[in-house]
Amino acid sequence: MEKSAIYHISEHSYAYPVNNDTLIVRLKTKKNDVDKIVIHYKNLYDHSSNSKKAVMSKVLSARYCDLFEASLHIQERRFKYCFQIFSKGENIFFTSEGFMKAPADEDFFYYPCINEDDIFHLPKWAQGEVIYQVFVDRFFRSDRAPDYPDLRSWNMLPEKEMLNCGGFRGLVRKDTYYGGDLAGVTEKLDYISNLGAKVLYLNPIFAAESYHKYDVTDYFRIDSRFGTLHDLKELVEEAHARGMKVVLDGVFNHCSYANELFQDVVRNQEKSKYKDWFHIRSFPVNEERKDYDSFGNVAPSMPRLNTSNQEVIDYVIDLTTYWTKTLNLDGWRFDVADEVSHELWVQLRRSLKKISPEIILIGEVWNNASRWLQGNEMDTVTNYKFRKALLKFMQKHRNANIFWEALSSNNMLYKSPVYNYLINLVGSHDTTRCRTLLGSAELHVLAMVVTLSFQGMPLIYYGDELAIEGGFDPDNRRPMQWNEISNPWAKIIGQITRFRSESEILKKGSLVPFDSGNPEVISFTREYEGKRIHLVANFGDSNARVVIPGGVNEIILGQAEDHDSGTLEVGFRKFALISS
Amino acid sequence: MEKSAIYHISEHSYAYPVNNDTLIVRLKTKKNDVDKIVIHYKNLYDHSSNSKKAVMSKVLSARYCDLFEASLHIQERRFKYCFQIFSKGENIFFTSEGFMKAPADEDFFYYPCINEDDIFHLPKWAQGEVIYQVFVDRFFRSDRAPDYPDLRSWNMLPEKEMLNCGGFRGLVRKDTYYGGDLAGVTEKLDYISNLGAKVLYLNPIFAAESYHKYDVTDYFRIDSRFGTLHDLKELVEEAHARGMKVVLDGVFNHCSYANELFQDVVRNQEKSKYKDWFHIRSFPVNEERKDYDSFGNVAPSMPRLNTSNQEVIDYVIDLTTYWTKTLNLDGWRFDVADEVSHELWVQLRRSLKKISPEIILIGEVWNNASRWLQGNEMDTVTNYKFRKALLKFMQKHRNANIFWEALSSNNMLYKSPVYNYLINLVGSHDTTRCRTLLGSAELHVLAMVVTLSFQGMPLIYYGDELAIEGGFDPDNRRPMQWNEISNPWAKIIGQITRFRSESEILKKGSLVPFDSGNPEVISFTREYEGKRIHLVANFGDSNARVVIPGGVNEIILGQAEDHDSGTLEVGFRKFALISS
Repeated sequence: MEKSAIYHISEHSYAYPVNNDTLIVRLKTKKNDVDKIVIHYKNLYDHSSNSKKAVMSKVLSARYCDLFEASLHIQERRFKYCFQIFSKGENIFFTSEGFMKAPADEDFFYYPCINEDDIFHLPKWAQGEVIYQVFVDRFFRSDRAPDYPDLRSWNMLPEKEMLNCGGFRGLVRKDTYYGGDLAGVTEKLDYISNLGAKVLYLNPIFAAESYHKYDVTDYFRIDSRFGTLHDLKELVEEAHARGMKVVLDGVFNHCSYANELFQDVVRNQEKSKYKDWFHIRSFPVNEERKDYDSFGNVAPSMPRLNTSNQEVIDYVIDLTTYWTKTLNLDGWRFDVADEVSHELWVQLRRSLKKISPEIILIGEVWNNASRWLQGNEMDTVTNYKFRKALLKFMQKHRNANIFWEALSSNNMLYKSPVYNYLINLVGSHDTTRCRTLLGSAELHVLAMVVTLSFQGMPLIYYGDELAIEGGFDPDNRRPMQWNEISNPWAKIIGQITRFRSESEILKKGSLVPFDSGNPEVISFTREYEGKRIHLVANFGDSNARVVIPGGVNEIILGQAEDHDSGTLEVGFRKFALISS
Repeated sequence: MEKSAIYHISEHSYAYPVNNDTLIVRLKTKKNDVDKIVIHYKNLYDHSSNSKKAVMSKVLSARYCDLFEASLHIQERRFKYCFQIFSKGENIFFTSEGFMKAPADEDFFYYPCINEDDIFHLPKWAQGEVIYQVFVDRFFRSDRAPDYPDLRSWNMLPEKEMLNCGGFRGLVRKDTYYGGDLAGVTEKLDYISNLGAKVLYLNPIFAAESYHKYDVTDYFRIDSRFGTLHDLKELVEEAHARGMKVVLDGVFNHCSYANELFQDVVRNQEKSKYKDWFHIRSFPVNEERKDYDSFGNVAPSMPRLNTSNQEVIDYVIDLTTYWTKTLNLDGWRFDVADEVSHELWVQLRRSLKKISPEIILIGEVWNNASRWLQGNEMDTVTNYKFRKALLKFMQKHRNANIFWEALSSNNMLYKSPVYNYLINLVGSHDTTRCRTLLGSAELHVLAMVVTLSFQGMPLIYYGDELAIEGGFDPDNRRPMQWNEISNPWAKIIGQITRFRSESEILKKGSLVPFDSGNPEVISFTREYEGKRIHLVANFGDSNARVVIPGGVNEIILGQAEDHDSGTLEVGFRKFALISS
């Protein structure tokens, strides 16, 4: 046995409660190195009876490591446990004190007590639902939209001229407006609802300097370009009337240079009561001397808020409370969540969940997000690692194993209740569009099909359901192509989205990959309460014959030929969603 | 290279800031498997320049794994990094996406931004200081002590009769009073101060049913057996006058059945406003029907508080605020810290540090304590793992390597700034006394010498400085033996304690073990600002010749013969503290 690979810690994604008296415990080992693991466990205060035993299951398998899991139930909610590992004739215990032949109770790992606040409470309604993301200026222009003389024609592409300011987002022209508005979104709610999306996520809409509104000038006001408070209230009410939920974009890492909070500093300098609300390195602060931290420290037009300052935390709590109550809001997506202080998120979650226990809190995080997913900050995050693994598979290694290993590695970082909430996406307003990256609408559809059948909350960036094109920012923010909504790709994507919206299995089920025998095929089973749905997506250039575990009952969606004995033939660049 | 053993996560003890712009990054590998690790790092938003590089140092070595560390400085406070690992001719990068030959920036691990609240602020004054623990009833009886007719004679041993209630603490008779009091502690402050202890930690003193006072009946009142509020104020003032600090014991996991909070529930049942302050399983609650959670779920006389309830949290904040302010208190030791909710600790820390930023918060934790040592709960914990490793070494494996591997394994769990605060102890009111376990005063002295020379805050349980005996609870709570304070063991222990209290090296220095060539010898170097002190403690039954790294300048304490060329001969069961 490779002892150096054995890893466990009695916290985080390795030991966590899922309810009052059930603890999930996990152990990492070298891949395929271990024959069996038996977990021995008992009440922490039980010094006499024998331990209970449970065989652990291998639940994830990454490139070099496997992850084993067991679910322990102890009514007294106090746990101690150790692992008996069987490997190639060897049989040894792994404990809090290391490896040993015969551990005493005091050598066990402890999970001393499950308290109510250790349990990760996620909004039940959101599990596995589809999110539709709308960039308001680029979605639909209503008749009520405010008139501005500078609107760009809906059919023109965004200007490519970049401002020279560095930063991975390649900050672009601020003033390119197409004229989409909130009332326009309301008008198109039936379209979004009919698509099967449960959640409408709007990019920022508060008063801001730019068309993208990530540089907020007034957190308590709707941007007049997009409409009025009345328009927004109507939008939310109409969404709710359709059974939909609305999520707003909260940008609290930074604001605009023109924001009154920062302008007070510019006017009053060291005497400003807001001087500690930012990270000012030296005074005076003005248009010339920009000696303060900003978004990425590269965008002086967006000074960074000091989110460790309790006054700033209180301000953010106030404004989010105001909007949540005023609009009867269902959730927030937090911009640059990984640069805002943890202290702010902890306090904000506590406040918002008190107002509305079922509100959903989404963090924008591009890399490992485990710090924000312990249960006291975000409910879920933008799972860009999913996108990365899928694109790497499609563009580089046509090897499904590598795809699964990457996702296993990612999932090992998180507690399993989050899996049905991870926001899987093939693109957003911050990436080149998937269709353009892949150079093929057929492959784009396959990517969408995998995403929309996957465990998690799939996010559709407006237009991706039509397979629209778009290079890097700003080209990925082209106006919505309403004339494309009946194209053949839209039809297929719409079918699977609508099917998902009605399927408990796709929304709430577990996911287990199965081996298709073909490295270019992504194949997995979703299972919920004993019922199963399988996806076979063939990314290869020839037909694939795949044996479906449990056999084929019905081909729900897609194209495939059902041969005898549960073997399905799926055409190249085609997929099949199957019940068994 | 054993890739399955490579472990890193961009948080916790693997990535943490130590100030505004410095990040400590660590990587775990298989033991002795890696030749060199170079960390490549740059500003998260820098997409053009080359990465900076630093060679990582091996800082800890456990049984099967090594831990490498580097300190990264980036003025912009935003980090991305990856590891280039050289092993037996192999040379590969380890990234957030796994192993690869040529990582892109987006494959790096991210530490997105250091915020002020990510930095673990520890009370500077406490670093490495000696704590003296006093069980008030058993320490000293002043002339002012309240008179009670039931006092047990100071020279008698505690009664051994145990109540039949299970639990690892073996709850014992509640009513065995010897009559020690707060004024008695004040009288003996010179003794404690002359010993070199900086911190006086008192076991509980609030009104309670038992002599040990862990079953509090009134959190806002001093127990009348121990004296008055005036006595306590005087004690703290007199301690402060001697440059000492005072830490009280906060028992918030449970209280007494007789506490008015619980009695209100007993009287009013479901109508009590405190019914959700406890974990009541079913009503009615009374002397017969004890259907509620209690300390360890085994002691109905101590109902467990529901520390996830915000009202309970507020109550604990109120009372600790009251005492902290009223007494000008320097710290709290929190009983059963690992069963109280994290939510309580997070909020309590925030409140207490606001009142008194330099207050010390100590958690009673027996096992892995990393969850409480992230920087937002405790400052430090009772490091019982140190005791376990030391006793195992002395009683079982006379092999210094095993001792060091156990401590390395423990230290890997924690952020390094905590090392100088970990509370190392050979015993407490909850353990059999070290002297009795070892069966030898000589060995007890050696154990104390190692503890008092070690990195951390050594804790002396009253009487251990005299090598007094004591079996398991209640025998370990014998009254202080004032007639023993000049015994030969007390003399040696007192010398080293006093030396430590004046030594920046022992208080603030790093610790690195060095190989003595003799498995029965514990030998290490403490270093601070280029100055070094070495300890050689010979637990064997024959003399040991040890080469001191850097040679011998002076034998500060202990007994040893200084041979030529920096070789020291230390007698069996003797030690030497050496400068070089």
